[in-house]
Amino acid sequence: KTHTDCMTSRNIIKLPGFIDVHVHVREPGATYKEDFDSCTASALAGGITMICAMPNTNPPVVDRTSFDYVAALSRVSSRCDYALYMGASTSNSETAAELAPQSAALKMYLNETYTTLKLDDMTVWQKHLQNWPKKIPICAHAEREKTGAIILMASLLDRPIHICHLARKEEILIVKAAKERGLKVTCEVCPHHLFLSTNDVDRIGKGRAEVRPVLCSPEDQEALWNNMDVIDIFATDHAPHSVEEKFSEKPPPGFPGLETILPLLLNAVHQGRLTMEDLINKFHRNPRKIFNLPEQPNTYVEVDMDYEWTIPDAMEFTKSKWTPFAGMHVCGSIHRVTLRGEIAYVEGQILVPPGFGQNVREWPAPKKQTFPIYSIEKVEKE
Amino acid sequence: KTHTDCMTSRNIIKLPGFIDVHVHVREPGATYKEDFDSCTASALAGGITMICAMPNTNPPVVDRTSFDYVAALSRVSSRCDYALYMGASTSNSETAAELAPQSAALKMYLNETYTTLKLDDMTVWQKHLQNWPKKIPICAHAEREKTGAIILMASLLDRPIHICHLARKEEILIVKAAKERGLKVTCEVCPHHLFLSTNDVDRIGKGRAEVRPVLCSPEDQEALWNNMDVIDIFATDHAPHSVEEKFSEKPPPGFPGLETILPLLLNAVHQGRLTMEDLINKFHRNPRKIFNLPEQPNTYVEVDMDYEWTIPDAMEFTKSKWTPFAGMHVCGSIHRVTLRGEIAYVEGQILVPPGFGQNVREWPAPKKQTFPIYSIEKVEKE
Ligand SMILES: [Zn+2]
Ligand SMILES: [Zn+2]
Ligand SMILES: [Zn+2]
Ligand SMILES: [Zn+2]
Ligand SMILES: [Zn+2]
Ligand SMILES: [Zn+2]
Ligand SMILES: [Zn+2]
Ligand SMILES: [Zn+2]
Repeated sequence: KTHTDCMTSRNIIKLPGFIDVHVHVREPGATYKEDFDSCTASALAGGITMICAMPNTNPPVVDRTSFDYVAALSRVSSRCDYALYMGASTSNSETAAELAPQSAALKMYLNETYTTLKLDDMTVWQKHLQNWPKKIPICAHAEREKTGAIILMASLLDRPIHICHLARKEEILIVKAAKERGLKVTCEVCPHHLFLSTNDVDRIGKGRAEVRPVLCSPEDQEALWNNMDVIDIFATDHAPHSVEEKFSEKPPPGFPGLETILPLLLNAVHQGRLTMEDLINKFHRNPRKIFNLPEQPNTYVEVDMDYEWTIPDAMEFTKSKWTPFAGMHVCGSIHRVTLRGEIAYVEGQILVPPGFGQNVREWPAPKKQTFPIYSIEKVEKE
Repeated sequence: KTHTDCMTSRNIIKLPGFIDVHVHVREPGATYKEDFDSCTASALAGGITMICAMPNTNPPVVDRTSFDYVAALSRVSSRCDYALYMGASTSNSETAAELAPQSAALKMYLNETYTTLKLDDMTVWQKHLQNWPKKIPICAHAEREKTGAIILMASLLDRPIHICHLARKEEILIVKAAKERGLKVTCEVCPHHLFLSTNDVDRIGKGRAEVRPVLCSPEDQEALWNNMDVIDIFATDHAPHSVEEKFSEKPPPGFPGLETILPLLLNAVHQGRLTMEDLINKFHRNPRKIFNLPEQPNTYVEVDMDYEWTIPDAMEFTKSKWTPFAGMHVCGSIHRVTLRGEIAYVEGQILVPPGFGQNVREWPAPKKQTFPIYSIEKVEKE
């Protein structure tokens, strides 16, 4: 397709509610960066109807007390549906599993990053992998050789492992090789590793471009695109910080991403770099399957495939008033979001209040999970 | 046994020639630290009749030119038998395998250490693991999570991998778990990780105690002893530096070890912490099997099991005139070494000249490798 085709027409199609399994809400502990209210508004504006909230808050979610505390906060303030991660710590490997049925998954931090939850060594990994139920996911921030090490350890214990935010050629190739040998490994990739590389660092600003995993080489970026079939999930790793922080001398790592992921992916579909089938599989269907998340009834996102726009300096609903994607020209935008029968978002307006969102782990378990086939429905075409 | 039993008697037994698969000869490039002459004299004085020489020399052994150069140097100067490692580099993954039949093994450096051969990333590991023949060993300096990652990658490619100098609990436990699941992994442990820990750093001196892997915690040390059945090989990682270097402000990492390994291990036998069977398996038989090394005919070591002595400030034959084991009280010493029918060492005297040693990879391949049972023979008892 040429780049002019999308400028005049209106081509609205209906897609399932998207699910972002990797979101840092920042509440409790850093609500000036983001909170459940702003984060879930940002999600809805981005066409995301369910998020999984990461546990590296302050306090971190590592036991029943902290879990219940965050569950209470999220219940009051969430506008979209959600589930909450448990965090693996060096000291909770014997107790974390008690919370497994209520959790989105267990998150293991194997690298230094924006957290206090870094795990000491492989003996601790092993205890968590042994004690956490096999049916509930374990997700690992495991860069480079740690990708290989955690896959080995999970496979020795015969349990599935999900690798967060693959960013490098070496990472996707080892996951590919492991999948080819039948190992139970799944993985996710973030938009900033798909759409940005070290080539973009000057434009973004060196400090501001800090993120974990870092922005990688164009060769790494290309390897992600060339192995699209290895990627199970797209997730934002939405990791908001204030503008003051990101424009300071030593910015903390992390990007906001909820309001830009779907437009970036729709633009890739528009460019023919991604199929709509892949988008729906990796951003709705596989998150549901891998995390055993329920279907949200009467939930869908209407997108305008032909609306062309330039990503502004900051998005509307996140408190993180900057974006590394500023200035990028994309085709595709979110027109309307319907969540459990209610119009939750339309053309720039959030229409559901804090508290509308539900913890999907508190829903009664369906007898059998269903995975509807989405026939992509044309809603309007002018 | 009590500690007085060994002070008066003379109890000489005959053991096979020991094989040290991990030796840094330092020639070419740093012959003031060590050279083939001094290194192999040190080996013989330590009851070692065959060494495998590491490739991180200057120039490093990474292609035919450097391999032939080191082969010529070793031919002229070695007093004991030997084989030479090839080094894996970031640029020789397509060509290294040509030298495989002549090599002891391929050495892959996955961590920063005393070398220029550090490999970039897992895509480079993968190329080496794919191209090097499965029948010839690959040995990896792979600490912590890298242990897990290289085991995974080798197993995905269905080829054996040998892990150098395990030092930590997390490392031996992952190797144990991998072996239990039938993965083709072998490993070696060094005397300094068996007999020293962070508890010894003050005595040795902080800078001087630098070695890679570092000296680890008493808990790590204990894990090695508690998993003796997981250890395939004892090897020195003999890594000599000059006294000036080791007593400088910022000493390079590495210990001499050839003249102390066998006394330390014999002392462990004396103390009942190790069986003589284990010593012979891990320091003669398994090195032969794993590295496919030939039996040296008429080659044996006579040791005095009851000779008690204190390790001095420096050993006799290595140029590295210090030892981290100084002051340790051991029972067991090397009386005489016979190499291919010649008395090579007796009571402090080296009796074979430089050039007596042979490159065992130049020997005609035996039709079938034999692994004689050593009945431990009492030679004298006074
Ligand atoms: Zn366009
Ligand atoms: Zn992460
Ligand atoms: Zn994250
Ligand atoms: Zn669905
Ligand atoms: Zn004694
Ligand atoms: Zn090493
Ligand atoms: Zn070494
Ligand atoms: Zn033998």
